[in-house]
This record gives sequence, structure tokens and C-alpha cells, in this order.
Amino acid sequence: MKKIINDPESVVEEMLHGMAVSQPQYVTKLEGFNVMVRTTQKKGKVALVSGGGSGHEPSHGGYVGKGMLDAAVAGAVFTSPTPDQIYEAIKAVDTGAGVLLIIKNYTGDVMNFEMAAEMAEADGITVEKVVTQDDVAVENSTWTTGRRGIAGTVLVHKIAGAKAEMGASLTEVKQTAENVIANERSMGMAILPCTVPAAGKPSFILADDEMEIGMGIHGEPGTHREKIQTADGIAQQLVDKILAEGIYHSGDEVAVMVNGLGATPLMELYIVSGKVQAILQEKGIQMVKTYVGNYMTSLEMAGCSVTLLKLDAELKNLLLAPADTPAFVQY
Amino acid sequence: MKKIINDPESVVEEMLHGMAVSQPQYVTKLEGFNVMVRTTQKKGKVALVSGGGSGHEPSHGGYVGKGMLDAAVAGAVFTSPTPDQIYEAIKAVDTGAGVLLIIKNYTGDVMNFEMAAEMAEADGITVEKVVTQDDVAVENSTWTTGRRGIAGTVLVHKIAGAKAEMGASLTEVKQTAENVIANERSMGMAILPCTVPAAGKPSFILADDEMEIGMGIHGEPGTHREKIQTADGIAQQLVDKILAEGIYHSGDEVAVMVNGLGATPLMELYIVSGKVQAILQEKGIQMVKTYVGNYMTSLEMAGCSVTLLKLDAELKNLLLAPADTPAFVQY
Repeated sequence: MKKIINDPESVVEEMLHGMAVSQPQYVTKLEGFNVMVRTTQKKGKVALVSGGGSGHEPSHGGYVGKGMLDAAVAGAVFTSPTPDQIYEAIKAVDTGAGVLLIIKNYTGDVMNFEMAAEMAEADGITVEKVVTQDDVAVENSTWTTGRRGIAGTVLVHKIAGAKAEMGASLTEVKQTAENVIANERSMGMAILPCTVPAAGKPSFILADDEMEIGMGIHGEPGTHREKIQTADGIAQQLVDKILAEGIYHSGDEVAVMVNGLGATPLMELYIVSGKVQAILQEKGIQMVKTYVGNYMTSLEMAGCSVTLLKLDAELKNLLLAPADTPAFVQY
Repeated sequence: MKKIINDPESVVEEMLHGMAVSQPQYVTKLEGFNVMVRTTQKKGKVALVSGGGSGHEPSHGGYVGKGMLDAAVAGAVFTSPTPDQIYEAIKAVDTGAGVLLIIKNYTGDVMNFEMAAEMAEADGITVEKVVTQDDVAVENSTWTTGRRGIAGTVLVHKIAGAKAEMGASLTEVKQTAENVIANERSMGMAILPCTVPAAGKPSFILADDEMEIGMGIHGEPGTHREKIQTADGIAQQLVDKILAEGIYHSGDEVAVMVNGLGATPLMELYIVSGKVQAILQEKGIQMVKTYVGNYMTSLEMAGCSVTLLKLDAELKNLLLAPADTPAFVQY
């Protein structure tokens, strides 16, 4: 294992510390907890809390700031944060308008966020939750019942965050988040594994000429392995699986995210994105906005995912609204 | 070689195409040339042109847009763009106020940008140039006489870009760029090599427990190899070498960039950044703004660089000015 770290056991704490001291204008670490909160809280606004296992940076601490999240809870690498950490995050950011939890669909995350919500509700805080499940690869997986939540989660942060920033109620913000979840789908693949620091060895092995289609962001099995294809072949396969959902049609406006899993050069992501655009254009689907980069990673895994989100007038408006966070800035 | 590409010979063209169709609001590919230009040119403004070999994405096409570059010229991977390509870029973006070329100090780049400048001047276009040479690792290197230009180049784009956007003259913009160059220093290291697509094999080999200090962004030799250290040890070594330049003192205000070389997880960059901040704080140096991420990469090389820039009142103001480009957005 080759990594630039001090101690496999303290990577999360050190990362959060590094983030807090590097970008204090955006984020502050909650004393004694692995929770990043907005440095400048907006009073009276519905607060958004997300999080999950670490190793997916910039998810989720990188999205704490204006127009996105109010707090992000960081578990150990690829491990759900504990309920007490989530509970502290909720308490720290509630200003009376209630808190929306945005949870990726992994059994541990769902359970721990729910327990935290109950603890907060016992304190009189109103808490609602949504669960992202954008990954169309498989129905159940290593740590998941149902579909996994992956890069599409970032678009929920963006759009629900914009809705909250505009002063909407908790019910409205939740409804908007659910509207995003209903209209977004993702599909990923990997060519090289990652190594969890505390494990010290790769989480799976692929042959030199092999790729895995539908790989999860923790290295969970996908739909199948096959000989590595061209970028165009990979893009086609990912988009085909998403379009097979039957929710994207000619004339629809969509947002596209071509997401890198950590070690994939931006050059390769742009090559994939070029093909994704060509496929969608041929189908008559309109690309309103495309994001290309590392949004939901798996440490140094090499691979990518594609996310499509169908936009109605409201979602489009909220997607294009300003955001100002460490990893997502938009005018 | 495991990469998500179609053909090693066409990666640059396909990347630029992908970028143009993905983010048309920002950039347009100059028909027939590997040049990205601002989609919305600002008339009467001094134009900034940069570029170099590809493989350093988001440098430089990712910095084309409001408050930064007007055009970026992309050579083959790790290969200088030809003078005719640079000449086309200059012609495309000059609106009469002149053009500043921002060149990283590699012999081929300097020669080809100079030839292009002469061609443009023969057409009556006023062209000035600055050469970045922020890398303190070595004095001469594989493709360089003097010091190499690396991640600090992005801060030149940012600050000179802001100066041009505010309506300054070519002489003033050049002076500002030179002020940045005089006050910035960088130092990098690598733990894993990258593979140029057309070469098909890694550009160097490091043992499993080895790192190279002072590695160039094309895999050029650094100062030495040694057993891999902790993140703190690495940060200390990089910052020490920069501080040995004797230009950063207690009370100074600085900008900091902790730059990933492509495959380094953001988690690791934040751990390094935490230590960089601690070292500077102990020296009494004030961090005004810190950038942590992939700004000047080397394909999928794993490693990082640290850049410091001493800020006077003008540089600080320009650094913090807005920018809106595919890879650098700032309010």
C-alpha cells in the first residue's frame, strides 16, 4: 500500500482537520466529532445534513456551504458514521426550521441516520429524511437492500440545498429532494481497485485486461466483469443501462454528471463525456448542464460513473442556482 | 496500461472535443486546431493565452473563462504545442489590446510560444510573454534550462486574468504576472508514476517503499529518492525546501496550493494541507487562501506539490476576485 498518510487509523480525523484549517471560510469541524458544519450558518433556513463513510471525497464535507449542505458527518473509511455523530450534526445546524437528512442507501447509513433522527426528535427537532438510490447496476448488494446511492447524491445536495437556501419549508425541501431522486439514475465501472488504509491491501483484484461494470463505490460487485473496452464502448454500456430505465425521452432536458472514482485522469473523463453527449444528442435528449470531475470517489479507484437527471422547470432553476462550497462553486 | 480511452493517438483531440460539447457555456474548440477559446470573448480586454503539453488537466483548458485565460493550446501528451497552433490561438483571441503568453519554463514550450509570438507580431498583434519557473526542486532538468514551471502557473492565470478582466493594459497585466512569478515557489513529490498513452508503459519505476522528491510533472528526475515517509514528513520536506528560498517571512500573507498529481485521493491532499498550515502558522506566516485539489496533474501520477505565493495588497485583491471557468470557479 502506497499512500500519503501518517497513520491508517487517523486518516479521517486528520483529513477533517486539514479541511477545517485550509478552508475556514467555508467549513468548521465540530469540536470532538467528525462533523463538518458551515462556518456561517443561515438562521431560519431548513438545514441539510448528509454524510456516510469516508473515502468518497469531496463527498460529503466538500459540499458544505452556501446553497448545499449545512453539515456532513464522516464515518471511518467506507463505514457508516455512528448515530451519536449524526445526532451532534443535526443539533449543531438546526435553527428551528427543521433538518433534512440525505442518506445514501446503505443498510448501516440508513439505520444510523434513522437512530440519530429519533434522538433529535426526542429533543424536539423536526427531522425528515430522503434516501438516494440512483445506481441502476444491481438491486441488492453487499451492504445494501435495494439500489445503492452513488454520485447522484451530489445532485440532491445541490438542488435541495438551493431550495432550502431560497427559504422553502422542510416539507417543500424534502419533496424537491424526492423529485431529484425519482428522476436521476447512475451507472459506474472500474478498471483498478482502491485500498482502504486500515486494510492495507486492495479491496478486489481485476486482471490486467479486465474491467468491472456496475462496480459499487466501496468495491461491491457489479453486474459482470469483461475485457476492458474503449472509452466509447464503456460510455455506451453505462448510458444504455441508464436509458433502459425508460424515464429519459426525446425532448427531455437533463443534467449529466461524468464522475471520476479518484484516480482517473480528467482527460479520460472528458473523452467519456464526449461520447455520452453524442449518445444523448442522437436520442434527442437536451443537455442543460454537464459536470465532469471527481464528485463521489472511492479513494484511488480508477473508473467512472455517469449520472442523468431529468429536469423540470423547478429542478432546472435550482440546479443552476448559485452554490459556494469547498468542492462545488457555481455562479 | 489500463486507461479509459479509445485510441492512444487521438486522446488530445477527443478530450478537447469532450470538453467543448460538455461545457459549451465556457469553452469552444477552435475548428481544426487543438485550441480551446472562451465562448464569450470580452472585447477590448488584454487576452491571456497559455498551454503546453496535454496530460496536466485541468491545465490549461480548464482555466479558460471569465477572470482567467482567453485561450489554451494543447500539445500532444507531455509535448509542446507547435507554433502554428499557438499562433492560431493568439489570432483568435486578440481584440486589439494585445496578448500575454503565459509559458511554463520548458525549452520546447518557450521556443514554440516565442515563434508563434513572432508570427503574430508580423501580423501587427502586440504580444508579450512571461515564463513561470516556480519549481524549486532542481535548476536544470530533462527538458528545462533553469527552473521548471509547475502548479504555480495556475496562480499566474488567476491573478493576471483578474487584472486583465479589470481592464488593465498589456504592460500592466504582464507586470502583475511577473510579480506573481517572482513571489511564488513550488515543490513536488511522487509515489507512483504515470503512463503516457502512446508510450504504453510507466515513465519511471519506484520501488514499493520508495518516493521521489522534487519529481517533475512529466516524470523528470527530482532531487533524490528515499523511503516513503509520513504525510507530515513529506509536507515538512516540501515546505522546508520552499522556505529555504528566503522570501517568506513571519507576518507575510500567502496563498497556498496543495496540488494533486492526478491519482492522489483528496483525503491525502487534505492531510498534507493540514501539516502545511501548521508549519506556516508556526513561522507566523498568514494563510489568506488555500486551494486543495487537482490543478496541475500528470495523468494518473500519485503525488502532490505545494505552492506558496506571497501576496501584496494588489495580488491579494486579484487572487480573491471572481473567476468562472470549467475548473476554477470563485465568487
